[in-house]
Amino acid sequence: MLLKSYNIAIVGPMGMVGRKITSILAERDFPINKLKLLGTEKNKGKKVTFKERTIYTEVAKKGAFKDVDIAFFCAGNEVSKDLAPIAIEEGALVIDNSSRWRMDPKIPLVVPEVNPEDLDWHQGLVANPNCSTIQMLVVLKPIHRRYGIKRVVVSTYQAVSGTGKRAIDELNSQVEDYISKNRITNSVYPYQILFNALPHIDSFLDTGYTKEEMKMIDETKKILGKDIQVTATTVRIPVFTAHAESVNVETKLPMDIDDLTTILNYSKGIKVLDYPGKNIYPIPINCAGKDHVFVGRIRKDYSIENGVNMWIVADNLRKGAALNAVQIAETLIDRDLL
Amino acid sequence: MLLKSYNIAIVGPMGMVGRKITSILAERDFPINKLKLLGTEKNKGKKVTFKERTIYTEVAKKGAFKDVDIAFFCAGNEVSKDLAPIAIEEGALVIDNSSRWRMDPKIPLVVPEVNPEDLDWHQGLVANPNCSTIQMLVVLKPIHRRYGIKRVVVSTYQAVSGTGKRAIDELNSQVEDYISKNRITNSVYPYQILFNALPHIDSFLDTGYTKEEMKMIDETKKILGKDIQVTATTVRIPVFTAHAESVNVETKLPMDIDDLTTILNYSKGIKVLDYPGKNIYPIPINCAGKDHVFVGRIRKDYSIENGVNMWIVADNLRKGAALNAVQIAETLIDRDLL
Repeated sequence: MLLKSYNIAIVGPMGMVGRKITSILAERDFPINKLKLLGTEKNKGKKVTFKERTIYTEVAKKGAFKDVDIAFFCAGNEVSKDLAPIAIEEGALVIDNSSRWRMDPKIPLVVPEVNPEDLDWHQGLVANPNCSTIQMLVVLKPIHRRYGIKRVVVSTYQAVSGTGKRAIDELNSQVEDYISKNRITNSVYPYQILFNALPHIDSFLDTGYTKEEMKMIDETKKILGKDIQVTATTVRIPVFTAHAESVNVETKLPMDIDDLTTILNYSKGIKVLDYPGKNIYPIPINCAGKDHVFVGRIRKDYSIENGVNMWIVADNLRKGAALNAVQIAETLIDRDLL
Repeated sequence: MLLKSYNIAIVGPMGMVGRKITSILAERDFPINKLKLLGTEKNKGKKVTFKERTIYTEVAKKGAFKDVDIAFFCAGNEVSKDLAPIAIEEGALVIDNSSRWRMDPKIPLVVPEVNPEDLDWHQGLVANPNCSTIQMLVVLKPIHRRYGIKRVVVSTYQAVSGTGKRAIDELNSQVEDYISKNRITNSVYPYQILFNALPHIDSFLDTGYTKEEMKMIDETKKILGKDIQVTATTVRIPVFTAHAESVNVETKLPMDIDDLTTILNYSKGIKVLDYPGKNIYPIPINCAGKDHVFVGRIRKDYSIENGVNMWIVADNLRKGAALNAVQIAETLIDRDLL
């Protein structure tokens, strides 16, 4: 059997997620005929190595998508807003990493382990959820299916790589300033992130919530069902890669913690790491670079009738962004939806 | 009027909390006649400066408390268990920072802003609550008084100084190893704490909870009332000083968020820092060294009828330990209970 191969474009190939998509496509041997890297004027001609071939970055503009089957967009909301409709018109299927189209009721918002069936009604664009939403939903879905989720209270511990390379550089330079006893300066975040915790991710809305918190709330409802109640507090901590989440879940049906753990263990995309007596629980430095969503500290919440507490960790650039986008493409192919 | 002054002993004067008690007694001009520093054999004769006087550490043992009015114990559970009864017998009032006596129903567990009246029934020993409990309760009490608290879901972001000086040294040496590109080693915590988050504070119980989590649950019930439901996830992050907490509260009565903020603003020991649009919210590096409990990110939780989310930060060594202990002593004097 001859496998079909595809013409792929990455819009925003020089950003952290764009680079990660390129490397994940190579790792997973995605069936690629031609890979186009579409960046800004400034990045035109920049070289990227893909499977020992050299690819020169072209400019992302009208006309660039005519021979493209799948276009990964990871250049922010403005580029997605302006260029995604053009890419669709020119015949590409767009997998969009920005938040621009996520809450549009005509756009499927998909985590392949959670709601692959929503791909069936795509109209040329599929939205990739927010990083902290994705990892939470991979774990919540099997719980919801079995016990029915009523309410979720989540507090996050998020890595600086979610902000981009300049935030990684800022944390590194703050470490250097600290060691050299220089004054620690900041420009990416409103305060020093080294040795600190900032309850502030993305911008604030009039309600007092951040956009990041509302993404976790609204995207969860869109994907799992709007009768699920969610509240969130999102916090940046001095970690480079992998977001952690303290998640409290109330279900409709009573849970048996052993059964719940077994269900999670057998669910796609999840690894349970939960032998606290042996210090086995997920931690960011060990989950960075991995594909799975890791869950541990699974324990009954005695403060309500049907409650459980969990600690969920995943690589925010991989499962939280690039990997999920590539998995969306793979699932579209599997389901013959291209 | 001649103010009475007291003979004070500090058991464990070389630890982080012991040193902090000494400096806070000086700062607050506590009415001291004589200050005794009672340590191990090893620390005998060590010098400490107190208000320009030099004090030589003596050995903490039977007989050392005969002339002592108030003894601050901050040398761990074993020392409190063995020596506190002796100190009481010799006539001292013990303010104990360990967890040894906290849950004993005959021992008052006190945060002076929250339940000073519990000092009235002391029998020679008053227990100082756990650091993460204290800062949470200072904020929960005025909410409970006005609206009646049903349930609390808390996730913590705790500083390494809670573990002691060796944890501060470990974080610092990990920073140095990182900069010198050496392998990062650990001995205090089971994993590297730099650029990481460990959902593990104190040891694990068979239930899957840590002792730290159970302290937050049990101590809150003992102090605020046993019908209050609490669940907790406690997490260590790479911060030197000041614990932060993401606290979700459900109340019996409906809350108006503006009224709630006003109530907190006028409550003793609390400072509200809550102008998110201007990036004003409490953060660990700014709360370290301060006496207040800081609260911000106060916002309605839309996932339940009467819910609020908050972000609470305080210096874990000051209000979380040493300051609260000294305030207990001050309140005992005020209430004529010595």
